[in-house]
Amino acid sequence: MDATWPPRGDVFDSRCPSRSVLDHVTSKWAVLVLAALDTGELRFSALRRRIDGVSEKMLAQTLRTLESDGFVAREVAPTTPPQVTYSLTDLGSGLTAQLTGLLDFITTRLPEIQAARRP
Amino acid sequence: MDATWPPRGDVFDSRCPSRSVLDHVTSKWAVLVLAALDTGELRFSALRRRIDGVSEKMLAQTLRTLESDGFVAREVAPTTPPQVTYSLTDLGSGLTAQLTGLLDFITTRLPEIQAARRP
Repeated sequence: MDATWPPRGDVFDSRCPSRSVLDHVTSKWAVLVLAALDTGELRFSALRRRIDGVSEKMLAQTLRTLESDGFVAREVAPTTPPQVTYSLTDLGSGLTAQLTGLLDFITTRLPEIQAARRP
Repeated sequence: MDATWPPRGDVFDSRCPSRSVLDHVTSKWAVLVLAALDTGELRFSALRRRIDGVSEKMLAQTLRTLESDGFVAREVAPTTPPQVTYSLTDLGSGLTAQLTGLLDFITTRLPEIQAARRP
C-alpha cells in the first residue's frame, strides 16, 4: 500500500488512516497541547504549567503521539542539562488553525452553553 | 454561582466549565456524531451505520452527553413503535461548523499527514 493512500480520507470509515489521526488529535490533552504551542515554542515544564491538570505522564505521551504524527517538533539544545523545546510543525500549525475556531466557540459561547445544559 | 458565569471561558483552567465542554465535544465519538448530524436529522440505527465501529452503548452514551450539553435534540414521534430522531440544535450547528474545518483538514491533507508520520 502506497504511503499516500488514500487521496482523501473518510473519518467515518474505521479502517481509514484519517480515523486514527482524528482520535489522536481529539484525545483528552492533544487539543490543549496544540493550542498552547500555537503561541510559540515551549519547554515541557512550561507546557505543563500552561495546561492545568495534565500529568507528566499524559503530557509526555500526548507529545510523543503528536510528534510521530508530524504535528509537533521536538528540539534538543546541546546544553548542560539539555533543553528540550516543543513547537508546531507547518502541518501542526494548519491543524491548530482549525482547532482555534472550536476553542473560540466553546469559550465565547460558554454562557449560552451553560444555559442550555441540563442538570 | 450564576448560570452564565464566567463571561468567557478558559479551557486551560481545569476548573472552568469550558474544559468539560471541550472534553465532551472531543470525546472519542462526539466529533463523528456531530459531523454525521450536520447533514440532517438521523435515527439511532442510521447514526450507528454511518459511524463505522461505534458500539450501541458508546453511541447512546455520546448522544446523552451531547443532548445534556444542549448540542443535540432528541425527538420521539408518537408512533408504534416510537421513532426517535436526533438532530443538531442551533448551538450544536454552530459548534459543528467549527469541527467541519478540522475534519476537512484531516481528510484532505491525509497524504501529507501520512507522509509526515513516523513508523
